[in-house]
This record gives sequence, structure tokens and C-alpha cells, in this order.
Amino acid sequence: MIVQTYKNMLQAKSVIRECAEFATRRGQEIGYENVFDYSLGNPSVPVPDAFTEHTIRLLETQESNQLHGYSPSVGLPSFRTKVAESLNRRFDMNYTAAHIFPTSGAAGALAHAIRCVAEAGDEILTFAPFFPEYNPYVNLTGAVLKVVPADTETFQINFEEFEEMLNEKTAAVLINTPNNPSGIVYSAETLKRLADILTQRAAAYGHDIFLISDEPYREIIFDRAEAPYVSKFYKNTLSCYSYSKSLSLPGERIGYVAVNPECTDAELLVPIMAQISRGIGHNCPTSLIMRGVEDVVDLTSDMSVYETNMNLLYDKLTELGFTVVRPGGTFYIFPKALEDDAKVFCKKALKYDLVLVPSDSFGVSGYFRMAYCIDTEKVVRSLDALERFVETEYPDR
Amino acid sequence: MIVQTYKNMLQAKSVIRECAEFATRRGQEIGYENVFDYSLGNPSVPVPDAFTEHTIRLLETQESNQLHGYSPSVGLPSFRTKVAESLNRRFDMNYTAAHIFPTSGAAGALAHAIRCVAEAGDEILTFAPFFPEYNPYVNLTGAVLKVVPADTETFQINFEEFEEMLNEKTAAVLINTPNNPSGIVYSAETLKRLADILTQRAAAYGHDIFLISDEPYREIIFDRAEAPYVSKFYKNTLSCYSYSKSLSLPGERIGYVAVNPECTDAELLVPIMAQISRGIGHNCPTSLIMRGVEDVVDLTSDMSVYETNMNLLYDKLTELGFTVVRPGGTFYIFPKALEDDAKVFCKKALKYDLVLVPSDSFGVSGYFRMAYCIDTEKVVRSLDALERFVETEYPDR
Repeated sequence: MIVQTYKNMLQAKSVIRECAEFATRRGQEIGYENVFDYSLGNPSVPVPDAFTEHTIRLLETQESNQLHGYSPSVGLPSFRTKVAESLNRRFDMNYTAAHIFPTSGAAGALAHAIRCVAEAGDEILTFAPFFPEYNPYVNLTGAVLKVVPADTETFQINFEEFEEMLNEKTAAVLINTPNNPSGIVYSAETLKRLADILTQRAAAYGHDIFLISDEPYREIIFDRAEAPYVSKFYKNTLSCYSYSKSLSLPGERIGYVAVNPECTDAELLVPIMAQISRGIGHNCPTSLIMRGVEDVVDLTSDMSVYETNMNLLYDKLTELGFTVVRPGGTFYIFPKALEDDAKVFCKKALKYDLVLVPSDSFGVSGYFRMAYCIDTEKVVRSLDALERFVETEYPDR
Repeated sequence: MIVQTYKNMLQAKSVIRECAEFATRRGQEIGYENVFDYSLGNPSVPVPDAFTEHTIRLLETQESNQLHGYSPSVGLPSFRTKVAESLNRRFDMNYTAAHIFPTSGAAGALAHAIRCVAEAGDEILTFAPFFPEYNPYVNLTGAVLKVVPADTETFQINFEEFEEMLNEKTAAVLINTPNNPSGIVYSAETLKRLADILTQRAAAYGHDIFLISDEPYREIIFDRAEAPYVSKFYKNTLSCYSYSKSLSLPGERIGYVAVNPECTDAELLVPIMAQISRGIGHNCPTSLIMRGVEDVVDLTSDMSVYETNMNLLYDKLTELGFTVVRPGGTFYIFPKALEDDAKVFCKKALKYDLVLVPSDSFGVSGYFRMAYCIDTEKVVRSLDALERFVETEYPDR
């Protein structure tokens, strides 16, 4: 019979998707250029030309059976080697190809990392605000996702609550820095304190606690800063990456898990992930895309527009009296709404063709997310709408 | 802690892979052209030029954010529509895009089809000989794979044993026609009888029994015949397909599940598969490859070489006294070994640089598989080696 678990899931609606659907419908009425659609985290900057040129060259020159043939279930050795070398150059790590497991995007990376270290009966802790897809990603493995409440002052980690929630069942901690939805980058101080606590607790409980680091926004950092590389702080780290944002290739579904070389059983984890793949029907990324990306592994798209947009929005939001923590990266900003119920707030904004996402599904109430991966010209036009919205609806703020 | 289930799986060795590894090593010693490597089912014929030309044109002309952007989690509407139309034209079905769930290859298709209809406590029946990866595909979902013994006379279905093994816990039956490893195509008579039994038993048990039809070899049919389209025989059929073989694109990981429009809850099954994807970290095929394939959805590679190779091998094997059922399709043949222990038989063959796969992991003992997706010139040369092998090792056969 058709399995009830999944049938029941059909009832739940994604708030982000509902917002995006509204934007599409409204666009049909007034022209999409007039809808200030801040709902979706879809990269807006072009793919590097080098990727396109290289991929065309592969198709033109390579023998088709070679180019499109089966890759090993752990991915092409050349791709794995180039990823390892790039990470070593940039973050002073000691990865080899044996530590890199290519995956079908970040979802594939998280599915493997989670299954390596957690099973039914285990708990995985994450920190609000968090990407709502972590719920099905974790809960359908049999393990349970527990959410540590946010530190809304800084959107760094709420360590007091975290230490209370850690327990013997904690198999892993799942973090996302730079963070969707807050745009905050965890500081070196935060990561060091997190690592110290995990080390102490692992010793106390007599078992490893893994750190699963979801970092698809690693390359989108503002103010010429560098995000601390999570795996340098804690040896039992599985870094989950996707080229969706850095190369603007979300539809090409290419990412990887990088296993810290000093991790427990580091040399077994990639072979274990290959076994996990057999159970979940995963295939490594497509041969053509691995070959295309391996040539541009140190490049990124020109992502400066995200910083431009962030500054425009941050300045305007601050001017209008919003409480907002300035993002250190990503293409998200996460201000406090002007009334307690973020859903009501976001619904009012729709009257001004501003599509904002209420924060509840991110595990925090009373905030909203704006995904500013849109043209700067549109951001500029939206500032007037934002001002009209606030001055009309919240004259006494 | 690292999950023991997967760690334990590392002990098991794939016989097919061991054979392929031997072939590679031996190739380094004597030149790979001198190793008669019948181990791997890797397509040997070129990808249709139309695919390559169309994909280059997409890369040259399309705006990169459009081309490589996120597709919906159920895949691109254009790809789904073209698949449905192609199936309708060829097999007189009534699919719409809503019945097509694009997947990352056949492994992805089976992972979704199985999870739709079976969960812990359920049984799935399959028929020997069978593709050994069905074991992890099914058993890691919590359901259990049960194997109906082979009818070694014809390699059609052993109905007597099947009817005994069917029971209230049977959630689905998994078939593979044209079959890996036997090369046999289930006849319309076989499929009709299978459908009748399933219909009767479903009524008796008071619940649906689904037919999961794994059909990546559907287009490789010999003697100008047509394989009966499984879904026409039984309404609760989920057809799992991959373009790996028909377009020689195994590394590009593109396939689909086609839900019979008259299936129970037909309109819910694709949305349910999208929910399953969230739990297993599946992503639909890559945007570029969906766009590339949708344009050539009615084409196949020129696969006539497989039939040429089959005839050469079948005639020689018969001449040498082997018992062998003539394949109706695929690029496999499955003769009876010349001694009871197929492993010993295949080991002896290695002395003649013939790499054959013993049948035990396919659920039948005493047979061997030859994957003849290799150059005809090499097949011809291998016939002498086969003759020397048989005459030297089995002079009294």
C-alpha cells in the first residue's frame, strides 16, 4: 500500500514556496519586474564563462563513451583530487581525494553525512534560525532534529541553551555558517567555544559527537573578510558543500562531503558513504558536470552584487527603525518584524508588492527573511515600497 | 558514532567489481585489448550526435542562470511532458507530465518506487536471476527482499514457487525485463499471468500489490521484436527507466519513474516521491542533462552491435555444447557453467584471459554472465579463447 508517512507530508505547505507562488501570480498581473520578490534563494549572477567554455570543449572534443560513461560510485578521481587540492590551498588543510565524497548537491551531502553518524534513537542538534529542510533531512532517517533557540542579539550560538540540550543521545551537531536565513557568519570565537564543548561532552559521554557543517554560502562573504573554515576547529567535522551558489549552478546538483583527515575512522567514511548511496539510490554528480567544474574549482561567479544589495537594504532598514543584525555573508538578511506576528507583518507587506518570508518556519518568531539575490536596480526601487509600507502600516513605530 | 550497519557492509565484496578489477590489472600486463573482459555492463556504443549537438547549442545560446538554475524538485515540466508523450506514442498509454517523476538514474527511480509502496515489515518479491544491487536497494528501506527461485528452463517466471511465496506481507513485486543477467524478455503470456495472480491476491489480502518494473534495457531488443510494455498488463505498475543504455549516458544519471495513470492514487504518487526525495537527499537529474535529453527522447544509440555480438556468442556457446537460453535483448547472456561450482569454472576461464562473472550473486548457482557490450572484433577474437578454454579444461564434456 502507499506509505502513509509520505502521504501525510503532502498536507504541509512550504511557506517559502507559497510566497514564491504569490510573487509569480502577482507578476502575471502587474509584470514581474514590479514585484519585489525577496522569497527565493536562487542565485542571480551568471555562471563563470570558463565553466561554459570548458564544458563546450569537452562535448566537442571528448569521445562520447569516455565523457558520459559510468563514474565510480564515489565520483571521478580527478574531480575529487582537484577539490582536495583547492581546499588545502585555501584553508591549509590536508585532504586527499580519499576524503572527498562528491554528491548530488548539498541535499545529497547532508543525507550522507547524517546517515554516517546518526540512526534511529539518536538526536541531532541544530541552532535557530535554521533552514527548514533540516527537518525532513534528519527526521526521515529515524534520528530526531532538536533545535536550540536563537541568540537573537547576535545570531551566533546560544551556548547556555545548547549546553542544556546536549545529552548522551546527541550524535551530531548541524551548523550552517554563513547562515540561511540570518546571513550571520560564526566567528572564530564561536567555533572555538563550540569545539571545546563538543570535545568535553564527547569525552564525558564516551562516544564521538560529529559536527556536520552545511556551508554552501562559504564563498559569499562581505567586507573583504574570510569566513573561518569550520573543520579547522574540530577534527570530527564533515563539511557539506554545494557549487549552487559559488558557481551559480543550482540546477546542476553538484557538491561534496569533505571528511576531516583527522576524523575518527577518516579513511572509512567515504567508503561508508558509498554504501549509504546504495540504500538511498544516490548517484554521484553527473560525469559532464564533474568534468566541467573540476576545471574551475578555484573560481566563483562575480558575487559582489550581493554585498551591494545587502548594504542598500541594511542601510534602509536601519533608517526605517528596524532592529537588524548586519549580515556577514550569504544573500539573506533577517530583520525583526514591526509586530509580534511575522505572518501578519508579511501579509501586510504584500499590499506593497513586497514578498518577505515570515520567520516561524526558521525556528524563530517575529522576524522575516529577505533573499536579495535579485538585480540591484530592483532592490533600489523596492526601498521606496519598503518606506511606504512602514510609514503607512506602522506610523507610530 | 559511525553507524555500524554501513561499516559492516564494507566487508562484502562485489563479485562483478572483483572481476572488473582483475581485467584492469591483467590489461596492464598484456594490454587491455588482449583481455576478453565480459564483466561490466557499460554501454560501448556512442551517444547520438543529436544529443551532443543540442547540448552544445544550449550552452552556447541560453542565458546561464536560466540554463543552470534550480529546477522544481519534480524536474523540468518540458522534460516530463516529452517523456509522457514519447511513452504514449510508443506504447499507447495515457501518461501526462504529472505521472512522470525524473530521477537520478535507475537507482534513484527504484529508491522512490520502493519507498512509495513498502516500509518496514513489508516484503518485496523478485525473481532469480536478479541484479544483486536489489538487495541493498530494498533491504536498507526496512522492507525485505525475497527471491523466487529461477525457472532455469526458460528464465521466465517460476509461477509455482511465486504463488507459494506470495503472502499478506507482499507489498510489491520487482521485475526486470529485459533481464540482467539472463537477457530474457518476459513474454506477454508471462506478464498476463503475473498480472492475474497479483490482481487475485490483492483482492484476497484486501490491499494493493504494486508491480515495480525495472526496465533500463527496454530498447535493446533482438530479432526486430518489441518487448511487451509491462504497465499495459497491470494498472498498479511503477515503471523505472534510465537513459544509461538507450542513449549510452550512464554517467549522466538520468531516468524516471512513470506512474500508470490508472494506478491507485495515481495523481498523488509523484508528489509523494517529491516528499521521499526530501528524506533521502535526492535531487532530480541535472538541468543541463534534462534539457539535452528532452530533445532526443525518441532516439536511441545505434545498438545493433549488441545483437551482432549476442549471435556470435550464442552460436559459439551452443556449438561448444553449452546449455544456454537465447537472449531476447540486453547485452547479457547467461549460460550454464560446465561444472557445478560457477566460481571454480570462472576462475579457470581467467587462465585464458576470459573474464566471466559467476552466477551465485544473481541468485542462481552453476551459471555465468557475459556482458557483451564490447567491440565485435574483440568478441570474435574471444571465441578462440573460449574454444581453447573449453577443450583444454573440459575435454570430456
